[in-house]
Amino acid sequence: MRLLVVGSVALDSVRTPFGEVKNALGGSAVYAAYSASFFTSVDLVGVAGEDFPSEYLKLLKERSIDLTGLQIKKGKTFSWSGEYASNLNQCQTLSTCLNLFKSFRPEVPPKYSDDKFAFLGNIDPELQLMVYRQLKNPHLLAADSMNFWIERKKKQLVNLLKYIDLFLLNDGETRDFSNEYNLRKAAKYVLSLGPKIFVVKKGEHGVIAFLKNGSFFSLPAYPLKIIADPTGAGDVFGGALMGYLARCPKLNKTSIYQGIIWGSIMASYNVEAFSLNRLLTLKDKDLKKRYQEFKKIGGRSSSVEHQLPKLDRRVQFPSPAPN
Amino acid sequence: MRLLVVGSVALDSVRTPFGEVKNALGGSAVYAAYSASFFTSVDLVGVAGEDFPSEYLKLLKERSIDLTGLQIKKGKTFSWSGEYASNLNQCQTLSTCLNLFKSFRPEVPPKYSDDKFAFLGNIDPELQLMVYRQLKNPHLLAADSMNFWIERKKKQLVNLLKYIDLFLLNDGETRDFSNEYNLRKAAKYVLSLGPKIFVVKKGEHGVIAFLKNGSFFSLPAYPLKIIADPTGAGDVFGGALMGYLARCPKLNKTSIYQGIIWGSIMASYNVEAFSLNRLLTLKDKDLKKRYQEFKKIGGRSSSVEHQLPKLDRRVQFPSPAPN
Repeated sequence: MRLLVVGSVALDSVRTPFGEVKNALGGSAVYAAYSASFFTSVDLVGVAGEDFPSEYLKLLKERSIDLTGLQIKKGKTFSWSGEYASNLNQCQTLSTCLNLFKSFRPEVPPKYSDDKFAFLGNIDPELQLMVYRQLKNPHLLAADSMNFWIERKKKQLVNLLKYIDLFLLNDGETRDFSNEYNLRKAAKYVLSLGPKIFVVKKGEHGVIAFLKNGSFFSLPAYPLKIIADPTGAGDVFGGALMGYLARCPKLNKTSIYQGIIWGSIMASYNVEAFSLNRLLTLKDKDLKKRYQEFKKIGGRSSSVEHQLPKLDRRVQFPSPAPN
Repeated sequence: MRLLVVGSVALDSVRTPFGEVKNALGGSAVYAAYSASFFTSVDLVGVAGEDFPSEYLKLLKERSIDLTGLQIKKGKTFSWSGEYASNLNQCQTLSTCLNLFKSFRPEVPPKYSDDKFAFLGNIDPELQLMVYRQLKNPHLLAADSMNFWIERKKKQLVNLLKYIDLFLLNDGETRDFSNEYNLRKAAKYVLSLGPKIFVVKKGEHGVIAFLKNGSFFSLPAYPLKIIADPTGAGDVFGGALMGYLARCPKLNKTSIYQGIIWGSIMASYNVEAFSLNRLLTLKDKDLKKRYQEFKKIGGRSSSVEHQLPKLDRRVQFPSPAPN
């Protein structure tokens, strides 16, 4: 099944203790789409300016990401610059230039409107809702958000959640959104608003996923030797999770758990280099290698082999999300 | 195999957003010994004053903890008081009265000196070393420490580590001790000093264990609905881990991993109430229940049944720790 990805397309300038990049390929839609493209076919909705380098477009096309929904407009691409402190846990935004993103209205091309899977990357919840309304019959709709929207558009975000199946936030955002420090209580609140699955991203501490039926599971992160740049890790995680689910014959606890492993694997690779640089050279064998490493760090037998479901097989239509 | 536990015996006064206790049973040796007693027979070395309530001694005796090594001296028991902020992650020490603990010199009674397993709770590394020197033939020696000793007695702590098989710190202490933020690099440093196993306790984020052979594994914490008081969680964890290992026929990656699960289970119960109150009423069925929950949160099949090795069987002598 194809996955629709909407979000920002950006030129990022990032400085960390390990180096810096200027006007690098970035944005939530780009990170998520590129990551998802390892698992399924991706349709991208976003906006970029005439200054957006053609080599960046080429990189996306090389992953067969459909760019019909990427509006290229007169003006400048959204740009962001930030600097990470030495522990890479805190990021200071140096500048945010919305540029064309200010007037962005997502338009889902007719050829995408049948997409059953969608990842609504971190943008204004009102724009995320616009995308939902343009989809004919979505079956698994995921959304990400951030503190900026929680503080400014909480009501709109709460409204959006009625239509969302899978919601993602990081742990700090979860606590802010719910006014509740305890993540289990926070998750109960989030799930009461609509989503069937709530995924809390905890960076170096892994992920906890809560399902509406009261079950939950927790996965540690892969402890890396080198973390060059955490930018986009959450989007890469979400893109891979949704890309994997779009490829799965069934949606159930097992596929969600496996999707979270694949999300964690992709994110763990992404932070090893700036921008999307690590993913650009990522091979199938790298994915398999870290999958085995993930099994091992969870204390499992390394003999358990996991194969990605093949893309070309006829997939069963996914059952509704667990409730 | 019996487990020797040394550390502080204390009267704790603790306030958290969920209540408070005054002069409650506490101290690293008490928490660790009580927790370990669910897995093996425990010998305790410590000091308490004449003010130490006889009902507290009774609680320890009820778990068949041998108190021959608990010196009861004229004077006052070590007391500590602290207050946790609303998120329970930060604790402010309000007062520390060393009292008899100031002049404490651990004395290992002759009947303990053959103990093969020992947990050196968080006390002055010079005192921990004294205990080591009184053991005839220890086979698995674990030590815990804290920032107070890292700042004041780093040299002595580094010296102690030559003799330690299993070392435990929390993540903040690990970073301070190694001057290295990245936990994998920090672990490499710690393991270069002597220990064969290094366990990083991350509180609500679980545990990572590093082995000298380069392998490591990570376990998420059980996400609790209620956390009343985090005091002693690390000691309860360490006590259960060592109690489990002392009971195991073999020391290997599997037993260490299982021990870490049991440590996490005991710690997860302990923080549900003040002092040792939750452990006082803990039943075998509670242990089994949370073991199954732990399996599930790791996405494993809940059908995998785990039985504790029976205490009364003849145990094989443990093989040396993996290297």
